[in-house]
Amino acid sequence: MPIKKVLIANRGEIALRVIRACRELGIGSVQAYSSADKDSLPVRLADESVEIGGPQATESYLKGSTIIAAAKEFGADAIHPGYGFLSENPDFAEECAGAGLAYIGPQASIIRVMGDKAAARRLAVEAGVPVTPGSDGPAADSEAAVEVARSIGFPVLIKASAGGGGRGMRVVKNEDELREVFERASHEAAVAFGSGAVYVEKYLDKVRHIEVQVFGDGERVVHVGERDCSIQRRHQKLVEESPSPAVDEAMRERITTAARRLAERVNYRSAGTVEFIVDTATNDFYFIEMNTRIQVEHPVTEEVTGLDLIKEQIRVASGESMSLYQEDIKFFGHAIECRINAEDPDKGFMPRPGKLEEFTVPLGPGVRVDSHAYPGYVLPPYYDSLLAKVVTRGQTREEALARMRCALAEFQITGVPTTIGFHQRLLNEPAFLEGRVHTRYLKEEMWAGHPMQEML
Amino acid sequence: MPIKKVLIANRGEIALRVIRACRELGIGSVQAYSSADKDSLPVRLADESVEIGGPQATESYLKGSTIIAAAKEFGADAIHPGYGFLSENPDFAEECAGAGLAYIGPQASIIRVMGDKAAARRLAVEAGVPVTPGSDGPAADSEAAVEVARSIGFPVLIKASAGGGGRGMRVVKNEDELREVFERASHEAAVAFGSGAVYVEKYLDKVRHIEVQVFGDGERVVHVGERDCSIQRRHQKLVEESPSPAVDEAMRERITTAARRLAERVNYRSAGTVEFIVDTATNDFYFIEMNTRIQVEHPVTEEVTGLDLIKEQIRVASGESMSLYQEDIKFFGHAIECRINAEDPDKGFMPRPGKLEEFTVPLGPGVRVDSHAYPGYVLPPYYDSLLAKVVTRGQTREEALARMRCALAEFQITGVPTTIGFHQRLLNEPAFLEGRVHTRYLKEEMWAGHPMQEML
Repeated sequence: MPIKKVLIANRGEIALRVIRACRELGIGSVQAYSSADKDSLPVRLADESVEIGGPQATESYLKGSTIIAAAKEFGADAIHPGYGFLSENPDFAEECAGAGLAYIGPQASIIRVMGDKAAARRLAVEAGVPVTPGSDGPAADSEAAVEVARSIGFPVLIKASAGGGGRGMRVVKNEDELREVFERASHEAAVAFGSGAVYVEKYLDKVRHIEVQVFGDGERVVHVGERDCSIQRRHQKLVEESPSPAVDEAMRERITTAARRLAERVNYRSAGTVEFIVDTATNDFYFIEMNTRIQVEHPVTEEVTGLDLIKEQIRVASGESMSLYQEDIKFFGHAIECRINAEDPDKGFMPRPGKLEEFTVPLGPGVRVDSHAYPGYVLPPYYDSLLAKVVTRGQTREEALARMRCALAEFQITGVPTTIGFHQRLLNEPAFLEGRVHTRYLKEEMWAGHPMQEML
Repeated sequence: MPIKKVLIANRGEIALRVIRACRELGIGSVQAYSSADKDSLPVRLADESVEIGGPQATESYLKGSTIIAAAKEFGADAIHPGYGFLSENPDFAEECAGAGLAYIGPQASIIRVMGDKAAARRLAVEAGVPVTPGSDGPAADSEAAVEVARSIGFPVLIKASAGGGGRGMRVVKNEDELREVFERASHEAAVAFGSGAVYVEKYLDKVRHIEVQVFGDGERVVHVGERDCSIQRRHQKLVEESPSPAVDEAMRERITTAARRLAERVNYRSAGTVEFIVDTATNDFYFIEMNTRIQVEHPVTEEVTGLDLIKEQIRVASGESMSLYQEDIKFFGHAIECRINAEDPDKGFMPRPGKLEEFTVPLGPGVRVDSHAYPGYVLPPYYDSLLAKVVTRGQTREEALARMRCALAEFQITGVPTTIGFHQRLLNEPAFLEGRVHTRYLKEEMWAGHPMQEML
């Protein structure tokens, strides 16, 4: 069934991104918004809009039934969940289908299985994808966990099965500590994620975060290359690039094949990301999780391939076969994304919502800006602090970096503190320029000795 | 000699384009500006700036000696002339060299010969490049012109040798008319261009304007594909795209080879454009002129190749060999540029300078905006009316067009009338969408019956 009108169940830059894709395809758009977002750009630029509740996400962007009712009321035939909010909620995906709406994302069953980290890990093993040494499914009790930890060696990670994105995990150094924290970790996981299941994995000291974009239509799967997202603070990505400066052709072949194999294992539909950690000592990679949605950093993949992942998501959700064939996907040059957040980097990246005064975006060759902000926009305090994504591309990494430096220097934002200065500093760090970073690089190296080091 | 600081002898978006290129290369920039441009964005974004005179171009941007003195005073070692103003003035190029400054453009001798249209035509013939049938050099008198016209058949064009860009030419239908206007045309050419030399060429009824971007370093030359600039009013381009929807692979091979051959004939250095008309009836192409400078529409070539022509100009001007090799230049997808002018399309595209109120540029995937404007900017009445170039790219022409429609719809400009509405209308014209246009399409077809038709 061709999709004629999409309701956007999200906000901010990703809402605008989906609206633009709908426009290009000649498809109508309905922006669902909370009362805090009524003056936002997506509301202004969508064909139609509908207020769905109060400013707290639980009153609006997380209310699946209200969103579905709004979609029906406005005659939408599909829902795009964006990222965050309901985007990895299998019940919501099912409810959409139940209401006769196309869910622009993967099958509910895949969202569900990938949301269970221990189950996803088992799937990866079945698909022949390397996983970090660890327990085969949740640990029954602390003694079972100790046994696994002994066999793989300390330190280990205890991870909540229902966690993800860095939440619900802790490092444990020895048996005594493991016995001591096992029950607490399980209890915390039950409180935080609704399931007390935890499992044990080998803890790797210095790792890069490298992920592979995959895309499928339920029958075929392609990979769209890797992204390196090693620059993080508290497991939140700040910078992403493609290709990874740490991946050579042989490794690219192996890691993209592994990702594709996992997606093929479940007949994946829509855009997804298979995330790996890569041991910087050995360059061995290990599956960590699969994100069953579009990601913040998808533009870097678009910039190096010329693909439009959101439009492809919409096409596939309408029942079309995927237009992508692996042999047609060509990669050219390099792209990098800096997330410009309304945060104070010198205060541990504390979010600082407020009113933007000046907001002049960088323009020119090789520069892409995805942003919902504008001069005078009041950033609500209820949501994430992402103001803009600046993406630059170049024929080489050096050219992309040079353009990023220029773009950051041109970007004029007043009214709130931003991460621009942080990125400018990072772009002069030799370790970053030479591609020698790991996921704790900010905390342990770049920020070493900084009074806010512990916040990272 | 590596260039360390560039003086920009131009204004508007091209000045900003050069400043950005300098920044990326880590080279200093000095913006030379007229008193009318003191609040302009290039002045704000350049490392340094220097006022060179009054608002009229003759008081500032055309004063070569003042500009060269400013470059020396500020320690610049190179001058970028942009387009227009002094950019095709061989004396200025020579004076730069005489003052020990690198001229970022071709050799003065080539600017000079290509500025003489009859001489350029002879060079083309020598290089085996097709030219429209016509006189071999300037016509000695009206009887010589009549003789040529008889041999090629009427109608013919009388063209001023020193003209160019559509200026200094007129259509003549028969012998009597030719005898009648020959002296007047020669006289007008002498007044307008300082030379009364005119020549006679076959007039082709419906032609496309197709040009080939070339680049050289004085030793090697490459072509960087063609651009189709058939949408014009009064010989001024309004829309440019690459590749041309009217050029197939065989013709592309022939036309780009012809352009390259001409550039090779003169050991061309820097960026240049070889312009052709293409007979829509036969698809035969004929050389019309070579522009010995960067052009307004260079971004469409950059978008389909990933090259940065301005940075390459600077590199080559500093004495480096060209980094481009023909076999490495790859073309992907399609790009299109719409010139957003402060003009009133319904009043014959009359320029309407003034103060911008809102100025919100379109963003997102596949969209590039080159503009020196900002909210509150007062467009001076002394220069051209170009406000912004919107360039979109896509995997196909259709995708680039869809993105252009979205970008134009997003572009918010208030305070002055613009050509946005015109472009939106054009992008819905079947003849344009199907690639069936010629250089008089606006006047004779799209605008047929419009009260301002005669203005076009």
